[in-house]
Amino acid sequence: MIKIIVDVFSGDNPQDLIKGTADAVNACPDVHIIMPGDPEYLEAELADCSFDRSRLEILPASEIIGNDESPTAAMRQKKDSSLVRGATLLKNDPEAGGMISAGSTGAILCCGIFIVGRIRGIDRPALAPLLPTADGGHVCLIDCGANADCRPQYLAQFALLGTGVMQSIYGIEKPRVALVNVGEEDHKGSALTNEAANLIKRMPVNFVGNMEAREALTGRYDVLVCDGFVGNVLLKSIEGTARLYSAKLLEAVRRNAPAGTDLAFVEHSVEDVMENLDYNSRGGAWLLGCNKPIMKIHGAANARTVPHAVRQMRSMILADMVGGISSKLKELSGKR
Amino acid sequence: MIKIIVDVFSGDNPQDLIKGTADAVNACPDVHIIMPGDPEYLEAELADCSFDRSRLEILPASEIIGNDESPTAAMRQKKDSSLVRGATLLKNDPEAGGMISAGSTGAILCCGIFIVGRIRGIDRPALAPLLPTADGGHVCLIDCGANADCRPQYLAQFALLGTGVMQSIYGIEKPRVALVNVGEEDHKGSALTNEAANLIKRMPVNFVGNMEAREALTGRYDVLVCDGFVGNVLLKSIEGTARLYSAKLLEAVRRNAPAGTDLAFVEHSVEDVMENLDYNSRGGAWLLGCNKPIMKIHGAANARTVPHAVRQMRSMILADMVGGISSKLKELSGKR
Repeated sequence: MIKIIVDVFSGDNPQDLIKGTADAVNACPDVHIIMPGDPEYLEAELADCSFDRSRLEILPASEIIGNDESPTAAMRQKKDSSLVRGATLLKNDPEAGGMISAGSTGAILCCGIFIVGRIRGIDRPALAPLLPTADGGHVCLIDCGANADCRPQYLAQFALLGTGVMQSIYGIEKPRVALVNVGEEDHKGSALTNEAANLIKRMPVNFVGNMEAREALTGRYDVLVCDGFVGNVLLKSIEGTARLYSAKLLEAVRRNAPAGTDLAFVEHSVEDVMENLDYNSRGGAWLLGCNKPIMKIHGAANARTVPHAVRQMRSMILADMVGGISSKLKELSGKR
Repeated sequence: MIKIIVDVFSGDNPQDLIKGTADAVNACPDVHIIMPGDPEYLEAELADCSFDRSRLEILPASEIIGNDESPTAAMRQKKDSSLVRGATLLKNDPEAGGMISAGSTGAILCCGIFIVGRIRGIDRPALAPLLPTADGGHVCLIDCGANADCRPQYLAQFALLGTGVMQSIYGIEKPRVALVNVGEEDHKGSALTNEAANLIKRMPVNFVGNMEAREALTGRYDVLVCDGFVGNVLLKSIEGTARLYSAKLLEAVRRNAPAGTDLAFVEHSVEDVMENLDYNSRGGAWLLGCNKPIMKIHGAANARTVPHAVRQMRSMILADMVGGISSKLKELSGKR
C-alpha cells in the first residue's frame, strides 16, 4: 500500500475536496489515504460517499491554519492543525510516502522546510507547477515563488529537481531543461543566469540552453528553471493574459458574428481552453526539495482535482523521486 | 516645425516604412522629417507617394547596421550608417527633437547611450513599450530588456521616466506607478524590489504599490516598474500566451461548432484581438533616459506604424519630456 496524506481543511471548500478524496481511493486501488482533521466532520461528509473505507484513515486534528495567517507563527502555535499534524506524520511515519495539502503556499513551505526537512544538498526547496503545453504535454516551472532571491547554485539544484519530477510522473527519460532568459544566445542574461548556466552544465541533467519566455508553453522544453521572482511573474502573466484574451475575444466575437448566430459553441470553447490552460484543475504545484514529496493544491480546487493529485503523488512515490535526487547529490558532492 | 529623424533602413522592410513616413508627413502638418539613408533609394521610393515634399529631408548615409551585428562594434565601425548618422544629428542639431528607428534594440541602445548621451541623474536608460490594456488604454512597462541587472535606484529612476511618458503622450496628470512584484503586500518581494519600493516612495511620482503580473494589462496602472529581466519575461510571456491561446481557441471552436457553421467571424475576431494586443502595431518601445527621446519600432513594422510613432514622438517633444525629467532630477539632487 502507498500511504498518502491529504489535508483538505486548509482550503476554501473542504467538502468538495473530501468527496474528491473518496474518488481518489476508488481510482487508486493500491493507495491508502490519511486525512488529518475533525473526525466528526470528516465522517459526516464521507458518509455519503461510496468507496473502500478500509483504505481511508482519519488523523484527528482540531485546528485549521487559515490563508491570512503568518505561516511561521501559525506553524508554531497551531500544533493540532491539520497541516502540522499531516507534516509531522509525514516526517515520522516511514510508511507515509507524501502529502497533498490545500493550505496556503507559505504555510506548506514552512512545514515542508521546518517539519519535513530538506534533502541533504538542496539549499532551498522550490515550488513547481506542471503547466499544460500547446502539444498536450506538460512543462515543470521551477521555482514559481518560494525563493524571490536566488543564488546560482539554487538554480542548478532546481534543474535537478525538475528533471526528477518529469522522469517520475511522465516517464520522460531525459527531460529537456531550459534556463528562462531574455534571449537564446549564451551571452544573454543577468549575472545570476550566466553563473547558473555554467553550474547547470555540470549537473547530470539534459540542459538545452536559454529560453525566451514566449516559448514557455510551446512544448519544446520539459523543465523551465528560474528564480522564484521570475517564475512567479511568468506564471501570473500567463494567467492574466489568458483571462484578458478570453474577455476580449468574446467581445470581438459578439461584435463580428452574423446577426442571430448562437454563440454557445464559442463560449464553450473559451471555457475549454481556459480549463486546459489551468494547471490547478489537473493537480497542483509541487514543493520540491524536501525529504518527502509534498504537493500544494489550489485553495479553491474542486473534487476532480484530488484524484489527479493523488495519481501524480503515487507516481512520485513509486519512482522514489526523493531517493533518486539524494543519490545524485551524493555522487556530485563525492566528485567535488 | 517639429524636427523628427526617422531611420527606416535598419529594419526588415524599409520600402513599407518609407511609404509610412510619407503618410506621417501628411498626418502631422507641423512636423519636419529627416530620413538618413541612401538618397537614390529614398527618392525612388518616395516618387510614388503624394505628400508635402518640403517637409521631408534626406540625410545621406551609405551604410546599414544589420540585426545580427555586434551593436558596439557596428556603432564604432559604421560611421556612415543610417542609425549612426541619425543619432549624431539628434545630438548635434539643437532643432532635432527626437529619433525613431527600426534598428536592433542593441544598436539603438548603444547609439542612445554613447552618441546621444544620458540625462544627468539617470544611471541607465531603459526600454519601455506602451502596452494596450483591457480598458482600451495603455500601460508603460519599464524596463523591458535594456538592463538585466538593476540596482534599486535604477528602478526609482524608471518610475520617474515612465511617469514622464504617460504625462507627455496621454496627458495623464498623475500616472499610477506600480512595482512588479510577487504579491501586493508591502513585505513581499526580493531584496531589489524591497529597496526599490523605499526609493520610489521618495520620488515625485504617484506610487500605488506592488502589483502581481496577472494585473499587468487590466488598466489599473499606468506605469509598471521592474528590472529588464523581469520586464522581458513579462512582455514575452504575454506574447507567447496570446499566440498559444489563439491556436487553442481556433482548434476548440472548430471542434465545437455546429456542422456547416461559417467560422470566418471567429477567425477575424482572433485576428482583431491579436492586433489589439500587439503594441508594435501602434508604435514601438521608447528608449527612455537619453538626452532626447528615441523610439524603436519593430524591424517588421508596417507602413501604418510610422504615423502612430511620429504622432507619439511629436507629443513627447511638445511636452518637453526630457526637460521635465531633468528639472525633477535637479530638484531631487538639490534636496539631498
